[in-house]
Amino acid sequence: MNGLLVFQSDFGLVDGAVAAMYGVAFCVDPGLTIHDLTHNIPPYDIFEASYRLLQAVPYWPEGTVFVTVIDPGVGSKRKSLVARTVKGQYIVSPDNGSLSDIARTVGIDEVREISESVGRRHGSGRSNTFHGRDVYAYTGALLASGKISFEEVGPVYDKDKIVLLEGILPRYEDGSITGEITTLDIRFGSLWTNISIELFEKLGAEPGTQVDVSIYRDRTRLYHSFVTYGKTFADVEIGEPLLYINSMDHIGLAINQGNFAKAYNIGTRDPWRIVLRKI
Amino acid sequence: MNGLLVFQSDFGLVDGAVAAMYGVAFCVDPGLTIHDLTHNIPPYDIFEASYRLLQAVPYWPEGTVFVTVIDPGVGSKRKSLVARTVKGQYIVSPDNGSLSDIARTVGIDEVREISESVGRRHGSGRSNTFHGRDVYAYTGALLASGKISFEEVGPVYDKDKIVLLEGILPRYEDGSITGEITTLDIRFGSLWTNISIELFEKLGAEPGTQVDVSIYRDRTRLYHSFVTYGKTFADVEIGEPLLYINSMDHIGLAINQGNFAKAYNIGTRDPWRIVLRKI
Amino acid sequence: MNGLLVFQSDFGLVDGAVAAMYGVAFCVDPGLTIHDLTHNIPPYDIFEASYRLLQAVPYWPEGTVFVTVIDPGVGSKRKSLVARTVKGQYIVSPDNGSLSDIARTVGIDEVREISESVGRRHGSGRSNTFHGRDVYAYTGALLASGKISFEEVGPVYDKDKIVLLEGILPRYEDGSITGEITTLDIRFGSLWTNISIELFEKLGAEPGTQVDVSIYRDRTRLYHSFVTYGKTFADVEIGEPLLYINSMDHIGLAINQGNFAKAYNIGTRDPWRIVLRKI
Repeated sequence: MNGLLVFQSDFGLVDGAVAAMYGVAFCVDPGLTIHDLTHNIPPYDIFEASYRLLQAVPYWPEGTVFVTVIDPGVGSKRKSLVARTVKGQYIVSPDNGSLSDIARTVGIDEVREISESVGRRHGSGRSNTFHGRDVYAYTGALLASGKISFEEVGPVYDKDKIVLLEGILPRYEDGSITGEITTLDIRFGSLWTNISIELFEKLGAEPGTQVDVSIYRDRTRLYHSFVTYGKTFADVEIGEPLLYINSMDHIGLAINQGNFAKAYNIGTRDPWRIVLRKI
Repeated sequence: MNGLLVFQSDFGLVDGAVAAMYGVAFCVDPGLTIHDLTHNIPPYDIFEASYRLLQAVPYWPEGTVFVTVIDPGVGSKRKSLVARTVKGQYIVSPDNGSLSDIARTVGIDEVREISESVGRRHGSGRSNTFHGRDVYAYTGALLASGKISFEEVGPVYDKDKIVLLEGILPRYEDGSITGEITTLDIRFGSLWTNISIELFEKLGAEPGTQVDVSIYRDRTRLYHSFVTYGKTFADVEIGEPLLYINSMDHIGLAINQGNFAKAYNIGTRDPWRIVLRKI
Repeated sequence: MNGLLVFQSDFGLVDGAVAAMYGVAFCVDPGLTIHDLTHNIPPYDIFEASYRLLQAVPYWPEGTVFVTVIDPGVGSKRKSLVARTVKGQYIVSPDNGSLSDIARTVGIDEVREISESVGRRHGSGRSNTFHGRDVYAYTGALLASGKISFEEVGPVYDKDKIVLLEGILPRYEDGSITGEITTLDIRFGSLWTNISIELFEKLGAEPGTQVDVSIYRDRTRLYHSFVTYGKTFADVEIGEPLLYINSMDHIGLAINQGNFAKAYNIGTRDPWRIVLRKI
């Protein structure tokens, strides 16, 4: 462990809930270094919880402990887990799908189920609605500070049994690629797909050429145009659309200094999909 | 002191005001560990300032220093204080009611008035509008770093004279409890009342049974229903209302995965109140 | 260097982009102390980027490293620089005007251009759209941790060649001062001008007296009133306008506990201007 602890939640930053989690962690060890991934996950949105972990976790050092609390099932019988990635980061999470993207893309090495006797802080009162503070932040701090080892979290949990969210798998067929619009680069309105560079290269489109792009909602095509495949936004004029490799090494679709999602009212995941075809 | 310094304000996080406070504190001691409670208190809302302190302060270690700057009277003759809680946390605050909930619920041990000669940073210019940076952050950093002791902050201030906000005290009478809707769990729309578990238990309602719930705005009843008293959200269906023990060990009222406050247009504090009655 | 690293961007805090920058920096050195200036700069707004640096940088200790990523030209041929202020803080930034206010008001001592061989992290993939993570956060962390010196960042860059934004210079003429409405104190709606105390004093207006205030959009006057020049908000009644010295030691215009910008629909910078005249 390296003493780094990182929180993610859907609590927002308008009240004292996140600060209460910090306080619990610092009571375990005032020497921890604590930061946030984001607390602005839309309430109960497990898909976003999973994706934002993928966007950040791989860039942190081995031994960092993440605590993610998007937990619509708090107080139900859903399991509380700690997963270790193949790169040696730890993620404390309810077993509700939040670990899906990390499991599929980075890889999970081993999973432990949190023993209530270890991971529930003393005097945590009679409330059963804030496991983020009373179980997850507390367990994460014990682990990040080295006060317990990964093995002491609790018994091994079969990593093939963790809840995984379903998605549209990207596929290449007959000269076209169909993929998912996984999320938005929210502030800028760019679409981020699950089409990797490697899959995209099967089209054989060279940078600087144009690609035939369609976006569907169910069976209705709501966008169709030829879009330049560029290396960077500066490859097109301001206001022009661009197909590009985003910071996750997947295909993104943007308007240079504009907002693609707002311009065409595009949403994410099922029932939305994107189809790319070589011209 | 433990080197932990925590800021709260109504400044938001859209400009450089909070970062200027951090900078001032790190100039006092670059080894401090600084974090935020929240900076999204609605402008000038002393009630929220007070309540969010209660939500977070008790979970932090002894010796932590909080700085809270919701200060509509900046530059007026309102006092600048440092209060020590009975649990040994310190709170730097203007004397305007921000300390009310901590004083009533946690307890304040001793109060000191900040001497301008101690707590005003050198070269803080001619502006009189940013005591958060020039007085409070500076004083908090001096105290958190151990450069001054609590006694050196300034003279003792009579703790019975600090400004306290008025509220509706919860009361049990003739088989019903009347209480205040103190705040919202904003992101989720749940109502948080000032009815403690202990008071609620006088009703004799068992978990799993229903309670008669009314919400009034002045004398007008705007909500009336029988609501399940559950241990956790999972005790009711998605979309159903629930009476529960919130993370402050008080009674909350929610719609499972819905937004109670928006659904029924409910507000907080006077003139709103909630009445619970056993069926 | 003092191990302090501070990030500013227009990324917002709704996804994992900022946390990925933190992770990259901690991979360089887990002992860094990292904080945020703000990540809520409006997308692509170089003027705000520049001004918010001015609002915060001067309050931080010598040796602090700032990383500012408002970068509409990412991937284009704009330069990537590190500037050292005359007070010994460092700012990592694209050369697009973000350094304007610091250069003019604080002063820049020396500028270096980032060598791609030094400042691009290994294995940063094929994406060219996130230099904030792959170049700027990485370079900032190398510098803040002392793993490279300022000289090792890259060759000296002529500091007189950095991009500077244009603005309306404040001027005194015939008993009146014309200035720029540089920005808003957003949460409170106050107008912040570029009129310094020193310039304002040429009017000879004493605290407590009234000043003739006009606000123009192009040639159209949209506000005209006599406003009290006070030392602090408490000098006027709630709801009354006030001319005051803001926390940057410039002239501000506010409504006590109200929102001046919303009340009169006032915007910032060209084509807006403010004219003050002694009565």
